[in-house]
Amino acid sequence: MLNQENHNKFYNSFVLGIDADDTLWENEAWFYKIQDRFFELMSPWSEAHETNNILLQNERVSIPKYGYGVTSFVKSMITTAIQISDGEIETKEIVQIISWGDELIDAPIELLPDVEETLSDLSDSYYLLLITKGDVLHQRAKIKKSGLTDFFWNIEVVGEKDPEIYEMLLNRYGIKPEMFVMIGNSVSSDVLPVLNIGAKAIHVPHHTTWELEIPDSKELENVSFPVAQSISEVPKILSGWND
Amino acid sequence: MLNQENHNKFYNSFVLGIDADDTLWENEAWFYKIQDRFFELMSPWSEAHETNNILLQNERVSIPKYGYGVTSFVKSMITTAIQISDGEIETKEIVQIISWGDELIDAPIELLPDVEETLSDLSDSYYLLLITKGDVLHQRAKIKKSGLTDFFWNIEVVGEKDPEIYEMLLNRYGIKPEMFVMIGNSVSSDVLPVLNIGAKAIHVPHHTTWELEIPDSKELENVSFPVAQSISEVPKILSGWND
Repeated sequence: MLNQENHNKFYNSFVLGIDADDTLWENEAWFYKIQDRFFELMSPWSEAHETNNILLQNERVSIPKYGYGVTSFVKSMITTAIQISDGEIETKEIVQIISWGDELIDAPIELLPDVEETLSDLSDSYYLLLITKGDVLHQRAKIKKSGLTDFFWNIEVVGEKDPEIYEMLLNRYGIKPEMFVMIGNSVSSDVLPVLNIGAKAIHVPHHTTWELEIPDSKELENVSFPVAQSISEVPKILSGWND
Repeated sequence: MLNQENHNKFYNSFVLGIDADDTLWENEAWFYKIQDRFFELMSPWSEAHETNNILLQNERVSIPKYGYGVTSFVKSMITTAIQISDGEIETKEIVQIISWGDELIDAPIELLPDVEETLSDLSDSYYLLLITKGDVLHQRAKIKKSGLTDFFWNIEVVGEKDPEIYEMLLNRYGIKPEMFVMIGNSVSSDVLPVLNIGAKAIHVPHHTTWELEIPDSKELENVSFPVAQSISEVPKILSGWND
């Protein structure tokens, strides 16, 4: 890890922004597991795909106010359950949905392949800034559990990943856009808003992508960015840019 | 406002950390309003003080995982309602509790007296760092609505206010503890953890204090800090320290 004392505002190598959920560790898999239980719970009233559609509608309404975390998801499930069952759902089932939230909060952290070695390698040469969205306490707890804290220069939990937030962060650390590279699994959150402000991004796809993180095909016109099949390919892509 | 470009890491005047809820604007008042409605809703099963006790118990369990925001509060109310009514509460009443959360999120921002003038004054001489705990999206939305954004050098939404978090922030900005002063209405969150890391704090009491923000009397032994009856007294206290 670079010595924080040596940090000055004239970075002569890239500062790397690194996403956490589904870039460093499994996350969606846990949500899908709970969603499947939820579809099962709703099955007396509605088929899985219909439940999913209404849940997504409620999440779209909830996220701009309540964010991307577990509480927002739990709230959306409760609202969906009452709506679909036309109020027939029982309070013991609502208690169950709330307990699924606790289960998500307490889920173990399973690092994705090559993450630890790659971060160790990258942190020798670059400042690593973890940038994650969600509930601030839960995201910080996950980072602590991951054992990866020491590779990071700083950790930022944000409410949304849009160009405005990335600009605020670059401004906070005095990083010029041309010296910033964001690395993450979501084209909508980790790539497009970063290219938008004149910085670089590397896409590291995950095996699943949540519907609300899939960009519109129009947004992909006229943009290009490298795609790494594994995080272990990132150092080589960066070296190419440094030459 | 100080020019961000002139910022260097050797601050020769104080950096001021400033709390938001109930220091800059009313916040608890909105929660109490909703709580009163909740006590009323629970009145067929339980008296207000008993409902309050169980709600506080549930909040104590919820906060370390879900934080201080509206979603955590809504979750605690739903859990309390089901518990107190022994499952008799109806789903339409749960929908109502959820809608109270939306009401809290959308509540107008009412600045406390002298806030705008004092921040304008302070921002001419000091770097102002807004430090608030809660849900990151909601806290940022409130700051935007307040019209106070431009007085702040940076804005930090944290999950908890403990010595570890304050140290992380001081480290992030390269601020020496002796050059940091925290200003806020909560002795537990804005004063004690800050004194604990060797920095200074000014207490600006609010007319109400939430039970979970009242420190144990033991924690107040052997500590002393100035108390400002209004935020407008802060500049004078700071001048005294600068002499």
